[in-house]
Amino acid sequence: MEEKEISQAVVQRLPRYFRYLDELRNNGVERISSQELSELMKVTASQIRQDLNNFGGFGQQGYGYNVDFLYHEIGKILGLDKKHHFIIIGAGNLGRALGNYIKFERRGFIFSGIFDQDEKLVGSFVRGLPVRPMEELERFVRENDIDIAVLTIPKAGAAEVAERLVGSGIKAIWNFAHVDLNVPDGIQVENVHLSDSLMRLSYNINHYSQEKT
Amino acid sequence: MEEKEISQAVVQRLPRYFRYLDELRNNGVERISSQELSELMKVTASQIRQDLNNFGGFGQQGYGYNVDFLYHEIGKILGLDKKHHFIIIGAGNLGRALGNYIKFERRGFIFSGIFDQDEKLVGSFVRGLPVRPMEELERFVRENDIDIAVLTIPKAGAAEVAERLVGSGIKAIWNFAHVDLNVPDGIQVENVHLSDSLMRLSYNINHYSQEKT
Repeated sequence: MEEKEISQAVVQRLPRYFRYLDELRNNGVERISSQELSELMKVTASQIRQDLNNFGGFGQQGYGYNVDFLYHEIGKILGLDKKHHFIIIGAGNLGRALGNYIKFERRGFIFSGIFDQDEKLVGSFVRGLPVRPMEELERFVRENDIDIAVLTIPKAGAAEVAERLVGSGIKAIWNFAHVDLNVPDGIQVENVHLSDSLMRLSYNINHYSQEKT
Repeated sequence: MEEKEISQAVVQRLPRYFRYLDELRNNGVERISSQELSELMKVTASQIRQDLNNFGGFGQQGYGYNVDFLYHEIGKILGLDKKHHFIIIGAGNLGRALGNYIKFERRGFIFSGIFDQDEKLVGSFVRGLPVRPMEELERFVRENDIDIAVLTIPKAGAAEVAERLVGSGIKAIWNFAHVDLNVPDGIQVENVHLSDSLMRLSYNINHYSQEKT
């Protein structure tokens, strides 16, 4: 299928469609109207039609969307029909938790290696893989066809590590370090700034909760 | 200071301002113009002025922003001058990682308890706190002035646990379960859907990386 370029706003929403379609599929639902999907997802039916029209002709007037077909098409658009090998930099609690998160594999993300600069951690195991020293990073990335690096290190070292990763040909960084990274165009970065998220929660508690309780 | 209601779009951006101001402050920078901040944060100076004007008169023509003052004001707006007690539901890898994330405390978020339904985990310790059985949940929330519950459990049980939390007077849920929660108005929810984030990365790798390498 030919795709036109879709906006990042739509890309932001796509995984949520995928998640709901997966759930519907698992519950044996075969088709769904934009109206029903709208009620379930709490977004307007017109937004749903507009978003899904980006991919051309999935919905049929009076029939609705074929759940299984749409699930697979969105999966392909998201690239989930391909395998991606990822490594984790930082074998602390968060890095270990992500390495042990088995659901990623169902989506084609293969945990392939884990690194840490702390000698005490090197050689210990995370889900069967040994923690490697940082000296092996570049070579490992090149020799093992690694697409994605997950950064779970403190912000102080993040910029330098990102540079090394870019130099060794990584395509994307999933960044949990509490800092924004400067990388060249063409390298994809997705930030998960946990503290930012917690601060937003704090704002909303302080501005909206008290009035209502 | 009287505040007008600010949009969620601005709220989304506030923690990032806070983070940059903290960094500047730690580097001994006392004042900064919207232009300099713009270059640093890679957003337009007019966006910065517009965002920060929501809080009234921080910037002065020809002087710029007082970094320390702005840092503290935004901190107050975010509610970071208050203490929030949180519990974690789900003592798996992710729950343990978040319990051990000491930086939250610097922002006033106090790790106060952790729960799991798995009897094998109950009684083990996470950062000095015992994992408690789910039966104690409601009472613990009521007796310990808990504001925030962090949900790090599989999606299957999330809706039921959210209902119990709401019933016992929680104000906010930081939701890592891979499902959207239905909660009454006035209960704040902030979602961290890790798989959604990884899928967006996958989309961007597949649509933008290949062309450029």
